[in-house]
Amino acid sequence: MVDEATSWEVLEELVLAGDAGAVEAFFRALPAAERVIAASRLSEEARVGLVESLSAADAADALALLPEVQAADVLDDVRVETAVAVLQEFPSDAQADLLGELEDARAERILAGMQPQEASGLRALREYEKDEAGGLMTTDHLALSVWSTVGEIVDRLQERADEIEDLDVQYVYLVDDDRLTGVLRLRDLLLARPSKAATEVMIAEPSSVRDDASVDALADFFEEHAYLGVPVVDGDRRLLGVVYRGALEGALRERADRDLRRSQGLLAEELRSMPLLGRSRRRLSWLSLNVVLNVVAASVIAAFEETLSQVIALAVFLPIISDMSGCSGNQAVAVSMRELSLGLVRPTEALRVWRQEIGVGLANGLALGSLVALGGWLWQGNPWFGLVVGGALAINTVLAVSMGGCVPLVLKRFEVDPAIASGPILTTATDMCGFLLVLGLATLALPYLG
Amino acid sequence: MVDEATSWEVLEELVLAGDAGAVEAFFRALPAAERVIAASRLSEEARVGLVESLSAADAADALALLPEVQAADVLDDVRVETAVAVLQEFPSDAQADLLGELEDARAERILAGMQPQEASGLRALREYEKDEAGGLMTTDHLALSVWSTVGEIVDRLQERADEIEDLDVQYVYLVDDDRLTGVLRLRDLLLARPSKAATEVMIAEPSSVRDDASVDALADFFEEHAYLGVPVVDGDRRLLGVVYRGALEGALRERADRDLRRSQGLLAEELRSMPLLGRSRRRLSWLSLNVVLNVVAASVIAAFEETLSQVIALAVFLPIISDMSGCSGNQAVAVSMRELSLGLVRPTEALRVWRQEIGVGLANGLALGSLVALGGWLWQGNPWFGLVVGGALAINTVLAVSMGGCVPLVLKRFEVDPAIASGPILTTATDMCGFLLVLGLATLALPYLG
Repeated sequence: MVDEATSWEVLEELVLAGDAGAVEAFFRALPAAERVIAASRLSEEARVGLVESLSAADAADALALLPEVQAADVLDDVRVETAVAVLQEFPSDAQADLLGELEDARAERILAGMQPQEASGLRALREYEKDEAGGLMTTDHLALSVWSTVGEIVDRLQERADEIEDLDVQYVYLVDDDRLTGVLRLRDLLLARPSKAATEVMIAEPSSVRDDASVDALADFFEEHAYLGVPVVDGDRRLLGVVYRGALEGALRERADRDLRRSQGLLAEELRSMPLLGRSRRRLSWLSLNVVLNVVAASVIAAFEETLSQVIALAVFLPIISDMSGCSGNQAVAVSMRELSLGLVRPTEALRVWRQEIGVGLANGLALGSLVALGGWLWQGNPWFGLVVGGALAINTVLAVSMGGCVPLVLKRFEVDPAIASGPILTTATDMCGFLLVLGLATLALPYLG
Repeated sequence: MVDEATSWEVLEELVLAGDAGAVEAFFRALPAAERVIAASRLSEEARVGLVESLSAADAADALALLPEVQAADVLDDVRVETAVAVLQEFPSDAQADLLGELEDARAERILAGMQPQEASGLRALREYEKDEAGGLMTTDHLALSVWSTVGEIVDRLQERADEIEDLDVQYVYLVDDDRLTGVLRLRDLLLARPSKAATEVMIAEPSSVRDDASVDALADFFEEHAYLGVPVVDGDRRLLGVVYRGALEGALRERADRDLRRSQGLLAEELRSMPLLGRSRRRLSWLSLNVVLNVVAASVIAAFEETLSQVIALAVFLPIISDMSGCSGNQAVAVSMRELSLGLVRPTEALRVWRQEIGVGLANGLALGSLVALGGWLWQGNPWFGLVVGGALAINTVLAVSMGGCVPLVLKRFEVDPAIASGPILTTATDMCGFLLVLGLATLALPYLG
């Protein structure tokens, strides 16, 4: 068994020593989890060497383990012939994605090394956004003439058996003058008599999506239909490719991942193997925005310095109320985000959500407020002190859940991404309100707090 | 076009009026997005009425739109015969999941209405956890004797064509005395000569997973193999069922969803249609924990009341430093969670992560600290004041990213779910350190701050 802690270092040495055979043998012997770690930790130089040493198929497997940005970096640095050979091991949608990460000049040099027809297909695919049907489709599908018998189709498949071996074939698409007219499932071919006309067995007028259909439209489609793939057509119903369920699920997972990352202020993808200053800058843009918002919120405290200096114990409760209200608000945000993504609520229904949140806000505000009021009273030995801090928290909890529930819907309605914007808007607002409530109530009650 | 705002109210009225035909026609005419909203907003009584009114297939479609808890509630309230009929429209793994949500007595009454063989299969499936191979597998697979020819197998499939029509068949499994010995893909059957022995065409010694394999093990498997499904076997290699890629992806998505929810302190699934007090209680358990942690952190402020009363302007910076450090720490948590889930880092490598975070911490701490120091200096007209607040933020940023990077790894190593525990541990620790740094440094520099 290879020593886990250093298997990537061994690999690095083998690659840099230039013994392609040893590299290949070693890489193949690594368990999958080790391969991911090894591939991602090699120096850039060694990663390029690794891909040059392996067979095209193994090199493609290695690249597929890496995050897309890193894989594209490698394709940028290997010889053009290697890039062409490795790229051709990927399905067409992944080829287009990887080429999309490269600079245009480099991508064109790689495309020039491919079959002209293949290259022009990829150029067309590169035009699509990554998250529309055209960008998620593969063009490696089987399209045959609709004017055939089942037997003829099976014969055609048997002729192309080698090619099909590599494809993820589930359906045969039937076209009439390039236009999609029917779909045959492999099982239909298997179960029908060879003499039958394809038109008798096929699913006629099959469902399809346009090439510019969004991820959401595709998600709706696959939710409604239990298909493994859907054909993609242009405005004239010409068959362009196929989006498989797996590609959509990958896109949805990537989006969920991105939303989670963004909610923590990582707007661009970060890997710890990236250069330090780039990583620092990626995080700083978000933090700088937060400093500004924090200063705005804290300026409320500065306005009440007079009150605070007379009842210094209030300073202990300011961060507590800020943090607790943020928590309550974020819970409401999370429920709204989930209901939006499940389609259980429409972006226009903020009022409905608010009516449903206000009850929870009142109940939780009362509970948390009482707890904090009791604590404040006992600590300072003054019921008025407890009333001020507990009351402020209770009212602010109601405000926080009301805003937290509605903010994602309102943002979505105005087409701002709620995963990014909900957090900072909510936190700033609840902080300001919270500080204003504690210190404002304290100013009113000042005669009883001394 | 149906008025979107009230289509569910119309449906509610139709259901309660008891006209099954009108209900069915109306429900079928609704677009998919409207069906989700309609099904989820009906009163419990109407939801039961809806399922009783629709055909079993339509009712199953309606239930599939609802979150699992709600769907199970409906199955709890409809007539047993309806529950049996509707349940049979689901694949076996979904049947087992839904039955798992019901009380044992109710589940047994429904199982008693099924074919004895089917019921005993479902009883066995109910024993599995939802997130192990046994709980994700479907038992609706095709298992035939390995001692057949390709032609015989195609004949058997043609005999069972009606049954296969409803199944998501991609593979035929070949068994010898119940033990898994080979796999045939539909395309192999299509492309091979009928007289060939199955053993010549099949994939021999096929990959399989044990029934107690975890979601992570399955994810590793599907990452390594481009299969659509994997057979599940017991300790004696007896074939039990098949886990499809789609079922695994569903389980992974559910887990990501749960992690996101949990990171906001929603430990149990919440829907706004649930009763108010239950929703309030679900959120309160988390908030109560947070109050306690907040009080612990804020007690540091109480200990420095003397210093604070002399330099009241410090109170403005306490929430800023608490919030900023929390932000920086959570960014590091998010990067670590992602690298853990991609397999780019092992839980034992906290030291490695720390070395990679410290640089970002120093860079960002310096940047943010300088900004806040400058602001503090200008505002108070005292460079020492700026030094205290800026220095505290700089040091605390380094501490926050160090802890944020390592905490998820350490938690994972001790098998605590990092999605739940990272946030509160980190926030409490960075708050305490932040308050201690600001007020401690201020106490040391007190002579220069007056």
